[in-house]
Amino acid sequence: MTDPRKNTRDVYPPTGPDLNTKSWLTEAPLRMLMNNLHPDVAENPHELVVYGGIGRAARTWRDFDLIVESLKELEADETLVVQSGKPVAIVKTHKDAPRVLIANSNLVPHWANWDHFNELDKKGLMMYGQMTAGSWIYIGSQGIVQGTYETFMEAGRQHYGGDLTGRWILTGGLGGMGGAQPLAAVMAGACCLAVECDEKSADFRLRTRYVDEKTHSLDEALEMIARWTKAGEAKSVALIGNAADIFPEIYKRGIRPDIVTDQTSAHDPVNGYLPQGWSVGEWRAKAETAPKEVEKAARASMRVQVEAMVAFHEDGVPTVDYGNNIRQMALEEGLENAFAFPGFVPAYIRPLFCRGIGPFRWAALSGDPEDIYKTDQKVKELLPDNKHLHNWLDMARERISFQGLPARICWVGLGDRHRLGLAFNEMVKNGELKAPVVIGRDHLDSGSVASPNRETEAMMDGSDAVSDWPLLNALVNTASGATWVSLHHGGGVGMGFSQHAGVVICADGTEDAAKRLERVLWNDPASGVWRHADAGYELAKGCARAHGLRLPAILG
Amino acid sequence: MTDPRKNTRDVYPPTGPDLNTKSWLTEAPLRMLMNNLHPDVAENPHELVVYGGIGRAARTWRDFDLIVESLKELEADETLVVQSGKPVAIVKTHKDAPRVLIANSNLVPHWANWDHFNELDKKGLMMYGQMTAGSWIYIGSQGIVQGTYETFMEAGRQHYGGDLTGRWILTGGLGGMGGAQPLAAVMAGACCLAVECDEKSADFRLRTRYVDEKTHSLDEALEMIARWTKAGEAKSVALIGNAADIFPEIYKRGIRPDIVTDQTSAHDPVNGYLPQGWSVGEWRAKAETAPKEVEKAARASMRVQVEAMVAFHEDGVPTVDYGNNIRQMALEEGLENAFAFPGFVPAYIRPLFCRGIGPFRWAALSGDPEDIYKTDQKVKELLPDNKHLHNWLDMARERISFQGLPARICWVGLGDRHRLGLAFNEMVKNGELKAPVVIGRDHLDSGSVASPNRETEAMMDGSDAVSDWPLLNALVNTASGATWVSLHHGGGVGMGFSQHAGVVICADGTEDAAKRLERVLWNDPASGVWRHADAGYELAKGCARAHGLRLPAILG
Ligand SMILES: NC(=O)c1ccc[n+]([C@@H]2O[C@H](COP(=O)([O-])OP(=O)(O)OC[C@H]3O[C@@H](n4cnc5c(N)ncnc54)[C@H](O)[C@@H]3O)[C@@H](O)[C@H]2O)c1
Ligand SMILES: NC(=O)c1ccc[n+]([C@@H]2O[C@H](COP(=O)([O-])OP(=O)(O)OC[C@H]3O[C@@H](n4cnc5c(N)ncnc54)[C@H](O)[C@@H]3O)[C@@H](O)[C@H]2O)c1
Repeated sequence: MTDPRKNTRDVYPPTGPDLNTKSWLTEAPLRMLMNNLHPDVAENPHELVVYGGIGRAARTWRDFDLIVESLKELEADETLVVQSGKPVAIVKTHKDAPRVLIANSNLVPHWANWDHFNELDKKGLMMYGQMTAGSWIYIGSQGIVQGTYETFMEAGRQHYGGDLTGRWILTGGLGGMGGAQPLAAVMAGACCLAVECDEKSADFRLRTRYVDEKTHSLDEALEMIARWTKAGEAKSVALIGNAADIFPEIYKRGIRPDIVTDQTSAHDPVNGYLPQGWSVGEWRAKAETAPKEVEKAARASMRVQVEAMVAFHEDGVPTVDYGNNIRQMALEEGLENAFAFPGFVPAYIRPLFCRGIGPFRWAALSGDPEDIYKTDQKVKELLPDNKHLHNWLDMARERISFQGLPARICWVGLGDRHRLGLAFNEMVKNGELKAPVVIGRDHLDSGSVASPNRETEAMMDGSDAVSDWPLLNALVNTASGATWVSLHHGGGVGMGFSQHAGVVICADGTEDAAKRLERVLWNDPASGVWRHADAGYELAKGCARAHGLRLPAILG
Repeated sequence: MTDPRKNTRDVYPPTGPDLNTKSWLTEAPLRMLMNNLHPDVAENPHELVVYGGIGRAARTWRDFDLIVESLKELEADETLVVQSGKPVAIVKTHKDAPRVLIANSNLVPHWANWDHFNELDKKGLMMYGQMTAGSWIYIGSQGIVQGTYETFMEAGRQHYGGDLTGRWILTGGLGGMGGAQPLAAVMAGACCLAVECDEKSADFRLRTRYVDEKTHSLDEALEMIARWTKAGEAKSVALIGNAADIFPEIYKRGIRPDIVTDQTSAHDPVNGYLPQGWSVGEWRAKAETAPKEVEKAARASMRVQVEAMVAFHEDGVPTVDYGNNIRQMALEEGLENAFAFPGFVPAYIRPLFCRGIGPFRWAALSGDPEDIYKTDQKVKELLPDNKHLHNWLDMARERISFQGLPARICWVGLGDRHRLGLAFNEMVKNGELKAPVVIGRDHLDSGSVASPNRETEAMMDGSDAVSDWPLLNALVNTASGATWVSLHHGGGVGMGFSQHAGVVICADGTEDAAKRLERVLWNDPASGVWRHADAGYELAKGCARAHGLRLPAILG
């Protein structure tokens, strides 16, 4: 029997101004589904895997074909219903309703674990949608660079008056996600010293210009940092070494970075963290043959690294856990004050979420990079005072290559998103852009996710696990006229640990689209502002008042 | 400090043709919210509790007032957002969008248990919405009578050619829910012998005419049953006794009922099931003082009763578990073949669900019983051949008194619901009815619930726990233009064990309403047909084909 999930086909989205479907509102999901499986975008497109382990765009290749076929047939008052990557129904709705409604990987809580999911998945009854894989709005690695950039920028705002010139960040790990750190730091105006034990990871980042220099010597790395920070030059260096050795050594020398964090894969003590005194080769070999031994040694080393991080923190250096669970590991190793420093979401992302700011993104359905450059320019015009955004746009254009359909991410919030959407729609209408654009965001956004170990960790009122919010977000976006809406479970942190919603809207240049854009791109970020206002954040309440939100039981 | 959930106010819904809000689409939720708290409807209205333990209509009295106030202000293109009984936002949508969007009691799966819920509930951060409590479409005890009636009718169809005349049902328990059994049996045309140990429960049902006779003698009870069945008369008798004694005794005597079931509270072995040889007084006292002793004795007796039920089953008597978990208890007592007979959902309800048939209901916003009688008549006209439905309507009118706003329940499915909705809308338009009606259903319906211990027990393909379906149901109803839509967790079976969606639509007599009614009352039951067709039920596939549903990956 052939595996219904394997194929050797290469899928590329159609580009250009001509329709393959009956309207742009159905052409848009068609192109974005295919874009998710574009060979330059997806991690394993032949198995329908987009990113994040097994995050898929469709359940099987047959389902993929049926989705495409359905979108080609769909009328302007019809909606396609997709259940865990399978197109189950086409229903009559109306022109202001979404054209596609999606639910992926949702399980009744008592059964919401990997074992049960895997059983259903094996039977062909389910699909893991991750966040933007099954909801057709993944656009490659630009996202992680931008997320890291925003984190560093917010740290800069909180601790250094918004200016990271002459500042430097100490971190560990240059892997799949962590490799974005030196580039993001430089974009944010800071220098970066990233400790990486595996020279191959560092070399990969050198080749793609995500990091500027490489060295095996701590002295040399520190000398570079001293030189660059003095000159106000933003540059980065990869230091080949073990973070558990280097962090304490830097502390001992009395040197104090301006920000400290870490992205080694500490969450996985067998395969993710090199124990002190081991070679990388020995580590990889023993991870197979003696996993318990590796784990024990790795955990002991993590404790050493966290001790140094706590010491930096206690000396007043802004220090955060970047979601790799290293504090928990150290705590379990007996380090009682391991949680002395905060996680990056409560520290830096939450203040953004309070204003509805999160990973807003758009893609040019034309396939033409010029369309994105024109929107970049429009963003600058409409947000003339947002210097750090201008900086991001310039740096992104210069240093990040497009993958698949040209796209752009930038973190903007309530009050700005709808203005950008309306302006893009106008550009489509008057022919400035060669075809419509789609506008969406990650599920990891201000009002669209409940994930107590990450996005909603340590909410002020303790409402971390309340998932009414993402469900309401999806209902509100559906009622506001988004082009497609999705409800997922288990993205980011795995089965049982998160519920989240996605939204995408197509700016096709029509008046109808303008009305929908105005509603969706206002209500969607607003839902993040209420969620945080309800939890008691003054920043969110202030934002709600400033924008005249009507929140009966929250603002009174 | 005063409890924000306690009050001595009595709430009654406004009645009559005049608006207290700006349109019927906002008047309808206002009246139905208040109706849920009507002293004749709610179990504990002063604490906002509607039914089902702690199922509430609003989180606090302040929230209740703010919901009312918000609905009074709401414009025709605005939507009120309610999070666990608290009105958090008013957003701009459009005229075909729902006027209210509700999410109640939803928790990220890993935290979805009573302990965490109770903690949040105590902090004022959550509310238990049950099914129709927090979604404002509970209408009193008519529901359980009708549900039981449909169960018995379906058993009659499956086993007795649709005619229960001269047949009799043996059951146990005349409590809150079980007390509906004799009335439902009689309505279905059958006789009923209900064994109840507590004479007070039987007397209550005698007074309200839910049961016809009472006796302490098995001989007398059997004599009555023999007489009535011979005469083709549908009547019922409560036998005061212990089901664990009576069931085996009837079996031993060689007497075979036509249907056997049970609604003692076997799910709760300490407080719910009288052990053999104990008096009711002794039982109640020891449940407090020696719960372990009671439990042990009760479980042993349950095993005895289930042995008798298995024996009836093996002799060919249709026998079902009515959702009280008595089979599980007997299994745990070592009765290996306790699950020889099926649960009532797979046996009798699922075939209805396959055709989108479930607890459809409507209420007259006028408050005038005549409006319901006129709709009863209209239902008969539109479904002239559905004899059992006519029977239900006649019996319901005769034997069930209205609670709060006059309302009617009847189980109809895909292809009928929208015709009734359109006809009612026409009756509102031409003045036959004194005011608009609202049309809704229980969350326990064909496409709207995932609950592996009850509604989705033992699905053909093993997809019991997949909750994409209720989420899609809510999204589709939102996209179709329902008046209010809700997404709940934990109703019926408790935290962690179910996810489900509600829908209500107002027939205000306008052309716009007609379009919405046609879409919503088609798509909503259709979603149940797909869900079951996808699981492999031929009945559902046949129904889908007969109604021309477009199910790309299911029907091919
Ligand atoms: N919460 C978030 O949003 C978020 C975002 C990005 C990354 N993360 C977390 O960050 C971690 C890294 O993610 P990734 O995708 O880059 O993982 P990865 O496994 O691809 O990379 C980890 C890197 O760390 C290096 N490393 C391991 N032990 C080391 C040590 N002792 N000293 C120096 N280098 C060492 C490895 O060689 C590897 O290159 C993960 O735990 C991930 O969950 C979280
Ligand atoms: N799955 C469903 O949809 C569904 C529907 C209705 C009821 N139920 C189940 O049915 C059961 C009954 O529900 P209820 O609300 O009526 O409960 P209840 O506690 O109000 O009533 C139970 C009745 O059984 C009687 N009883 C206890 N032990 C007995 C014995 N040994 N012999 C005779 N009578 C005995 C009690 O005196 C009481 O009147 C529950 O377990 C409930 O969960 C399930």
